[in-house]
Amino acid sequence: MPNRIKKVAVLTSGGDAPGMNAAVRSVVRTCAYHGVECVGVYRGYQGMIEGDFKPMNARSVRGIINKGGTILKSARSKEFRTKEGREKAYQNIIKEGIEGIVVIGGDGSFTGALVFNQEYGFPVMGIPGTIDNDIFGTTHTLGFDTALNTVVDAIDKIRDTASSHNRLFFIEVMGRDVGHIALNTGIAGGAEEILIPEEDLGLERLKESLNKSRTSGKSSSIVVVAEGDKIGKNIFELKDYVDENLDGYDVRVSVLGHMQRGGSPSCFDRVLASRMGVKAVESMLNGESNYMVGLLNNKMELTPLEQAIKGKTKINLELLRVSDIMST
Amino acid sequence: MPNRIKKVAVLTSGGDAPGMNAAVRSVVRTCAYHGVECVGVYRGYQGMIEGDFKPMNARSVRGIINKGGTILKSARSKEFRTKEGREKAYQNIIKEGIEGIVVIGGDGSFTGALVFNQEYGFPVMGIPGTIDNDIFGTTHTLGFDTALNTVVDAIDKIRDTASSHNRLFFIEVMGRDVGHIALNTGIAGGAEEILIPEEDLGLERLKESLNKSRTSGKSSSIVVVAEGDKIGKNIFELKDYVDENLDGYDVRVSVLGHMQRGGSPSCFDRVLASRMGVKAVESMLNGESNYMVGLLNNKMELTPLEQAIKGKTKINLELLRVSDIMST
Amino acid sequence: MPNRIKKVAVLTSGGDAPGMNAAVRSVVRTCAYHGVECVGVYRGYQGMIEGDFKPMNARSVRGIINKGGTILKSARSKEFRTKEGREKAYQNIIKEGIEGIVVIGGDGSFTGALVFNQEYGFPVMGIPGTIDNDIFGTTHTLGFDTALNTVVDAIDKIRDTASSHNRLFFIEVMGRDVGHIALNTGIAGGAEEILIPEEDLGLERLKESLNKSRTSGKSSSIVVVAEGDKIGKNIFELKDYVDENLDGYDVRVSVLGHMQRGGSPSCFDRVLASRMGVKAVESMLNGESNYMVGLLNNKMELTPLEQAIKGKTKINLELLRVSDIMST
Amino acid sequence: MPNRIKKVAVLTSGGDAPGMNAAVRSVVRTCAYHGVECVGVYRGYQGMIEGDFKPMNARSVRGIINKGGTILKSARSKEFRTKEGREKAYQNIIKEGIEGIVVIGGDGSFTGALVFNQEYGFPVMGIPGTIDNDIFGTTHTLGFDTALNTVVDAIDKIRDTASSHNRLFFIEVMGRDVGHIALNTGIAGGAEEILIPEEDLGLERLKESLNKSRTSGKSSSIVVVAEGDKIGKNIFELKDYVDENLDGYDVRVSVLGHMQRGGSPSCFDRVLASRMGVKAVESMLNGESNYMVGLLNNKMELTPLEQAIKGKTKINLELLRVSDIMST
Repeated sequence: MPNRIKKVAVLTSGGDAPGMNAAVRSVVRTCAYHGVECVGVYRGYQGMIEGDFKPMNARSVRGIINKGGTILKSARSKEFRTKEGREKAYQNIIKEGIEGIVVIGGDGSFTGALVFNQEYGFPVMGIPGTIDNDIFGTTHTLGFDTALNTVVDAIDKIRDTASSHNRLFFIEVMGRDVGHIALNTGIAGGAEEILIPEEDLGLERLKESLNKSRTSGKSSSIVVVAEGDKIGKNIFELKDYVDENLDGYDVRVSVLGHMQRGGSPSCFDRVLASRMGVKAVESMLNGESNYMVGLLNNKMELTPLEQAIKGKTKINLELLRVSDIMST
Repeated sequence: MPNRIKKVAVLTSGGDAPGMNAAVRSVVRTCAYHGVECVGVYRGYQGMIEGDFKPMNARSVRGIINKGGTILKSARSKEFRTKEGREKAYQNIIKEGIEGIVVIGGDGSFTGALVFNQEYGFPVMGIPGTIDNDIFGTTHTLGFDTALNTVVDAIDKIRDTASSHNRLFFIEVMGRDVGHIALNTGIAGGAEEILIPEEDLGLERLKESLNKSRTSGKSSSIVVVAEGDKIGKNIFELKDYVDENLDGYDVRVSVLGHMQRGGSPSCFDRVLASRMGVKAVESMLNGESNYMVGLLNNKMELTPLEQAIKGKTKINLELLRVSDIMST
Repeated sequence: MPNRIKKVAVLTSGGDAPGMNAAVRSVVRTCAYHGVECVGVYRGYQGMIEGDFKPMNARSVRGIINKGGTILKSARSKEFRTKEGREKAYQNIIKEGIEGIVVIGGDGSFTGALVFNQEYGFPVMGIPGTIDNDIFGTTHTLGFDTALNTVVDAIDKIRDTASSHNRLFFIEVMGRDVGHIALNTGIAGGAEEILIPEEDLGLERLKESLNKSRTSGKSSSIVVVAEGDKIGKNIFELKDYVDENLDGYDVRVSVLGHMQRGGSPSCFDRVLASRMGVKAVESMLNGESNYMVGLLNNKMELTPLEQAIKGKTKINLELLRVSDIMST
Repeated sequence: MPNRIKKVAVLTSGGDAPGMNAAVRSVVRTCAYHGVECVGVYRGYQGMIEGDFKPMNARSVRGIINKGGTILKSARSKEFRTKEGREKAYQNIIKEGIEGIVVIGGDGSFTGALVFNQEYGFPVMGIPGTIDNDIFGTTHTLGFDTALNTVVDAIDKIRDTASSHNRLFFIEVMGRDVGHIALNTGIAGGAEEILIPEEDLGLERLKESLNKSRTSGKSSSIVVVAEGDKIGKNIFELKDYVDENLDGYDVRVSVLGHMQRGGSPSCFDRVLASRMGVKAVESMLNGESNYMVGLLNNKMELTPLEQAIKGKTKINLELLRVSDIMST
């Protein structure tokens, strides 16, 4: 391998997710293990444009595996969408002697990496970091498992008060385009109904479902709603609809919001991040480029970035059915 | 003691709070310890009106000390505010042989107890259960400590994402009339500013404070806002104000909502609930009535219900000062 | 389907695991969904022998999805290992009209089910419930994911104090025959070394590894040790070895113990349990018997009980390598 | 105030406790607020002897309020117990221009501070940081509340498995000389019996108590044992005693160990730490010395170090009684 890469950069980009720090740590330590230099880029692509680099070694990433957020910070960079911005970035990394980049982020971040690669032929590898689990080529994105536990913990708390007061709660969880978080946490939280973008249940069926639940003797109910659900304009309008169309419900709304993005990563996410970092760096050292690492059948696999961006992980229809049966 | 009470009822009323189940358990077991019968009343005063009673013994309350919510359920009863409603309730408890009632709830619930006592001379004792800590005669209400930990846990998570993205977060916590939750969690969560109903900081000072924090090099900020804060009409308007009047902030809002009421009670709340239940029952057996039990100087003390309702636990000014110094 | 099963029993057996209640709930509700009667058997096979049955419907399992332990209780039954015991059990279930049994437990429990099936031709289905993840035919057993998070949470706490005092901690985790818990939590907890039954590292290499970690500037260290590790006779002897053979270490031991078996199940375990219950009941209604349901490639699959018992899920060698690289 | 102190040092000493970082942060920020320089001393008194100092400002302590352990590290220093050691320490702090020291630790640490003050007339202030709550002059030491929640969480998990298997668990918690942790967590964890150093229950009464609990129909039991309990030589011998003297018990032992010292501090501990830091620094700036700050009647108060060391916070007898009643 005559032209093996001697210096790797790592950055986090897009919305942050638990496990990003564990992935940064893994990239840095895998570099150290192979005697390759490693540089952290701050604030994603914007930091590349501004030359915001910091050399990192095994000790730089000590004590971060259990921290939420990202020590490298993240930002969305408008400038990187311009040819001028990318040119600046390229000049900076060449000057720094960087020969490959590992990008931890979602599909927007991967698109940036791909364009950069197409323009400059620069080696890039992607690690899927987003709580939404909406990236093709991996059954789990970094942060998804942690976010599920955070949401379920909140639903458990809300159920305490819902059942003490015989209330109906609409709980909004993240997921603008995909219902993975809603579907899993709805099942785990014992929700009576789950509303996701992939399926327009219709207000009539929601009404029926709630009526059925009520007549079956349930005195409190939880409906988990994905942010991007298409059924109504928003969760507060759902409440209004039920207030007007169903008798005897004391309806409340809870929007879980940004706390879903934070928190110490779960064991699953820490192990996944560690595996992904190793795979990303070693693949790059083996001459690969333009791939995303992912978990498929419990193994680390590579998927071309182009596919990862275009594809979407579809909702598991089995889970929809399980949800229906569980709310019997 | 010739006329010692032989049968005690216990109910939970008003908004539920972590620790209510631990208090119910304590009331029931203290009755059992003293050979007194105990009856649980479901859904607060409404259950008294409807005769929704259930005999309880030491085993009925097994396994509930760590459960959020209230197994007796809670409800607000309009009917109990009428003379007719209270008459029905009285007839039911007389028929049941109940000779005293322990009411676990907030000041609204205590007002009901007091009126009932005034009308029928019926022995009542109050246990302060509400997360708001707004009741006079106790340094801590049941559920307050647990709610504080729930909120701080959420702030920690939000800070992860705030600092990854250099954002300003307004976080709304419970407290319509009092700022106890906001003040304590603001200090514990490392908030740059805390907005409480007791103090109208003014938008100008908020602006100054945020500017100061920014110029001191802080790239992310948390502002904790009590529900009932008077500074603006609501938290979303605060965001609009900052968007319009301060440059360079990426502002987000998070309303923590009902999950603050749920969750397994903290050690503090479980011990407090156990102590309060013992004190309430034993005081009643000793012939006391119309008192609320409370924690004062780490001891169980009695405060006349009338005082407990009228008074308010004031904000600790020392904490305001500590908050100022910490956000240096 | 002329002979479709009309009454199903469910029991939990062997060591309890988080998610068992969620699986019981799923079995019961899937039966209800299909109009099949369901009976809970208390204390595993012993309850079959003693006829300790209770009819269950959708409402019987309300509010248990988030509870650790098992509401059906578990026990090891010596009597069921005798022909007489099994005959008694058979007579009881026939009398009760039960036509199929779902067994939630580990390989010992499955062996019992298999023998019972061989003797009486009675339909049995297995759901793998054990924190050890040592059952062939599923990538995850029920409770494994929750136990991992419990252990990692404890390691995080111990690391706080380890690094404050520059100490070396040996932390013992469950896993008599397999190192799955140790390997995953060791990586996630940032352990310097992981000792598992599958690999005899040898005391010399442990010494070297600790020396290397020390010379690389680490002032505190965590070694995660599986219960069944072969390196030394036990974890306290490991401490003695280091005390005698390595200078400058302040060594401490922590045995995490039974708390690893408890706690509210993670989202992953709740969803897995829900899926497994549906699959087990529906397979049985479709005439299948003698299978264990499992998660393979993110799908529910059936594995013959015989294979599930004989096989062992092997340690993922990739994880061993990741662990080595991470402790660089 | 002509001779106001211009430079303050802060150190953590003895066993670490959650909230120590929050206290360090508070000391540093209060100094900054008053325009006083602040220096962190690493590894307690040993760092004073070795001159291991680091200037600290408001930014040095960013992001540590929620971290367990102590960023300043802690150590026990034999050298500081010698006159020569203390002389070296004195020379170092004089050279550094330090004019007062805030010591965060337990009574051993305070003794060191007192001797140092007596020998050199050097201003010292103490902040009680230890999970044991065994220091006179404060109702709560830093870390006590967090440790209680950690222990109760573990007991809850163990109870899940205890009640699934009808087992008796002996759970050992910290507390060599005092039973505060055992008493509070025993009540909160619903323990059937609590063994503390302050009270020798006697094996006979333990036996009776367990028998009573069994005959009352309880199938599982928890006994919380303080480390320093006098009843038997150790917790494993207690198990042996029950195995030999009581029928029908499946007994297990769990020693919670060092994880009790770690973890993110509770809201209570963070607020307490913030208040104590302010009080300690401001008292010192006001010319006070040789005091410990403490929480008495919900106010910050000063207690002479000498008293704090000699006195012990006694077990609250009311709690012992509550525990008895609860295990009815």
